[in-house]
Amino acid sequence: MTRQIHLGSVQIGGGAPLVIQSMCNTKTSDAEATLAQIRRLADLGCQVIRVALPSLSAVPGLARICAESPLPVVADIHFDARLALEALSAGAHGIRVNPGNLPDLARVREVAEAAARLDRCVRVGVNMGSLSPSAREKYGLTAEAMVASALEYLRIFEDATCRNLKVSLKSSDLRISIEAARRFHSESDWPLHLGITEAGTPMAGTIKSAIGLGVLLLEGIGDTIRVSLTAPPEAEITAAHRILDALGLRPGRPQLVSCPTCGRTRIDLIPIAEAVETEIDRLMSAGKSIVLRKIAVMGCEVNGPGEASDADLGIAGGNGTGVIFKFGKPVRRCPEAELLPALLEEIRAAAK
Amino acid sequence: MTRQIHLGSVQIGGGAPLVIQSMCNTKTSDAEATLAQIRRLADLGCQVIRVALPSLSAVPGLARICAESPLPVVADIHFDARLALEALSAGAHGIRVNPGNLPDLARVREVAEAAARLDRCVRVGVNMGSLSPSAREKYGLTAEAMVASALEYLRIFEDATCRNLKVSLKSSDLRISIEAARRFHSESDWPLHLGITEAGTPMAGTIKSAIGLGVLLLEGIGDTIRVSLTAPPEAEITAAHRILDALGLRPGRPQLVSCPTCGRTRIDLIPIAEAVETEIDRLMSAGKSIVLRKIAVMGCEVNGPGEASDADLGIAGGNGTGVIFKFGKPVRRCPEAELLPALLEEIRAAAK
Repeated sequence: MTRQIHLGSVQIGGGAPLVIQSMCNTKTSDAEATLAQIRRLADLGCQVIRVALPSLSAVPGLARICAESPLPVVADIHFDARLALEALSAGAHGIRVNPGNLPDLARVREVAEAAARLDRCVRVGVNMGSLSPSAREKYGLTAEAMVASALEYLRIFEDATCRNLKVSLKSSDLRISIEAARRFHSESDWPLHLGITEAGTPMAGTIKSAIGLGVLLLEGIGDTIRVSLTAPPEAEITAAHRILDALGLRPGRPQLVSCPTCGRTRIDLIPIAEAVETEIDRLMSAGKSIVLRKIAVMGCEVNGPGEASDADLGIAGGNGTGVIFKFGKPVRRCPEAELLPALLEEIRAAAK
Repeated sequence: MTRQIHLGSVQIGGGAPLVIQSMCNTKTSDAEATLAQIRRLADLGCQVIRVALPSLSAVPGLARICAESPLPVVADIHFDARLALEALSAGAHGIRVNPGNLPDLARVREVAEAAARLDRCVRVGVNMGSLSPSAREKYGLTAEAMVASALEYLRIFEDATCRNLKVSLKSSDLRISIEAARRFHSESDWPLHLGITEAGTPMAGTIKSAIGLGVLLLEGIGDTIRVSLTAPPEAEITAAHRILDALGLRPGRPQLVSCPTCGRTRIDLIPIAEAVETEIDRLMSAGKSIVLRKIAVMGCEVNGPGEASDADLGIAGGNGTGVIFKFGKPVRRCPEAELLPALLEEIRAAAK
C-alpha cells in the first residue's frame, strides 16, 4: 500500500481509486484555449491535467488556468528551476520535474522548499529519453538508472519535508517500464504515476499502454495513470477508460462479454453487442452507476447458456430467437428483434 | 520450453514463432464463401483457420475446404463425437474438442485413436462457459477447474499416443485466464493456444486481449494466439498483429515511438506518425522485413534528442524544422515539409 497524497482536491495512492490524467496540447499562454480543453477533458472523465510551462512568458496564462480550471493543474517543468518556482507562485496544484532536465541540485532544493511551504504536489518524472547524465553513465539505459534517478531526487524533496510526492518511470520500452515500476514499488511507498511514454498512434499506443499498465495494475502497482498517445488528449481519456474497463477497475461499470461470430452464430450479434456497449458508455458518461456485474451477449448454444447464466443479465441467441437470462435464470424466450430493446431496458433499469 | 507439434505444415511450440489464428464466420456448408474468407485472412497474415462443424450435413463442405485451403484447417467440434471422426476423415488438419461439450470419454477415446492414426492435431479447448459438469462441481468456476478438465482429457489423447496436442484455457475473466495458463504451463509442456474468450467489441475486446495475452507472452507463456472479437474475423488478425507489435514480437517490424502532442510541440506530429505507421504496415503486408529496430517521431527538445538518438532512425522536431537522426547521430536539419518524405525514403531503403 502506497502513502496517500493530495494534488489539489484529488487524493492519490493509499487505496484511493485510480486517478486518470492527461496533458493539454494547447499553448499555456493561451489560457482561453487551454481552459476550454481542460473543461472538455473533465467532461470526459479526466481528473488531473498537466500543462507545459516552456518559458516565463507563459506564467500569466498558467496563473489564470490554475484559478479557473475545474481540475487540479500540474505544470510540466524542464531546463529552468525558475519556471518551477514561478509555477508554484502562480498557483499550480502540482509541478512535474524531470531529474535529467533539471540537474542543478541546489536549485532543486529551493524548489523543494517552496513546494513544502505551499503544500503542493511534486511529481518526480523520470523518462528514459532524458535520464540524468550521471545515472545514464552509471547504469546505462536501464530500469535501474530510472529508479536510481528517482530515489536520488526524491531524497531532496523528502529532506525539505514535502509530503505530496509521486513518481513516474517512463520508457517507450514496455519491459523496461514494467521492470522499473516493480523495482521502485518494492523500494518505496510513494505513489506511482504509470504510463508508457511515446506509445504511438491511437490504436498501437492504446494497445502498448494496455499491456504495460495492465501488467502492473493486475499486480496492484499504480495509483494514477496517463495513456500517452500521438493524438489529441481527448483520445487519451477514452483509452484510459477502456483499459480500466478491461481490468474491471471502473466502479459502476459492468463487464460486457460478447461472442466472436462464427459459423454457428444464428443471430446478428455484432450490432447488438455494439448497441449495448454504446448504452453502457452513455449511462457512464451521464454519471450513472450500473448495478450489474456482467452482461453477456452470446450467439449460440456452445458457450451461450454457460456465460449467460453466469452473468447478471444476458442473452443466448438461437435461430432467429433468443433467451434472456437474469441473475443466472432464463426468464423468457423472444424473437430476435425484441432482444436488444429488452436488454437496453434492463440496463437502464439497473442504472442509478 | 514447450514441445513442438505440427498442425498441417505449421509448427507450433518448442521455440517456433508465435502462430496467429482466427475462425471463419461463414457457414462451413458454403465452401465457396468459407474459402474466400480463408484466402482474405491468409493475405492479412492469419496462419491457422478454424471452422465450425455444427452438423454432419456440413462435412462435404469441410472436405472441400480442407482440400483447397491455403491454411491448415481446424474443425470446431461440440456435442457429437461423430463430427470429430467425420472431420478427420474429411481431411481436417486439426480438430478442437471441448471437454464440457463431449463428456462421453469412451467416444473421446475413439476420436483420440483416429487422430493418432492419422497424425492430426487436437486442441483440447477448455472454456469456462462450457466446463464439464464434474469439474464445475468439484472446483467451481475457477482456473483449477479449467486446468483439471484439460489434464483429464489430455490423458486420453496421450494414452492413444497422439503427438500433436495443444491446449486452450479460455475465460472471459482476464485474471482467471491468466491464472489458468500459468498453472497449466507449470504442470505440462504441451503448447498453449492463448485467447481471452468473448472479449467483446473491436476496441474493448482488443484491449482486454492485449492485457491478457500480453501478461502471458511477456512471461514466455503461449505458442499460438487468437484474439476473439465480436467483429468480422479479419479484424482479429489486425488486432493480433498490433498486440505482437506492441510486444516487439513481430520479426522484421521496427518499434514506432512517437510523442504525445503537448503545448511544447512545434511541428504537426500526428500526420507524420500516422504516415510512418501506414508505410510500415504497407511494407509488412508486402512481405518485407524492415532492418530497423526502432523509429522515433519526436516533437520537441524534452525527450526528442534522447529518444531519437537511441533509435535507428528518428526525427526530433523544432520550430518548423527538425533534425534527422540515423543510428544515434544527427545527420541533417531540414524544414518541416521535408521530414516525412525523408523518413519514408529511409524506411523504404531499409525494407528487404
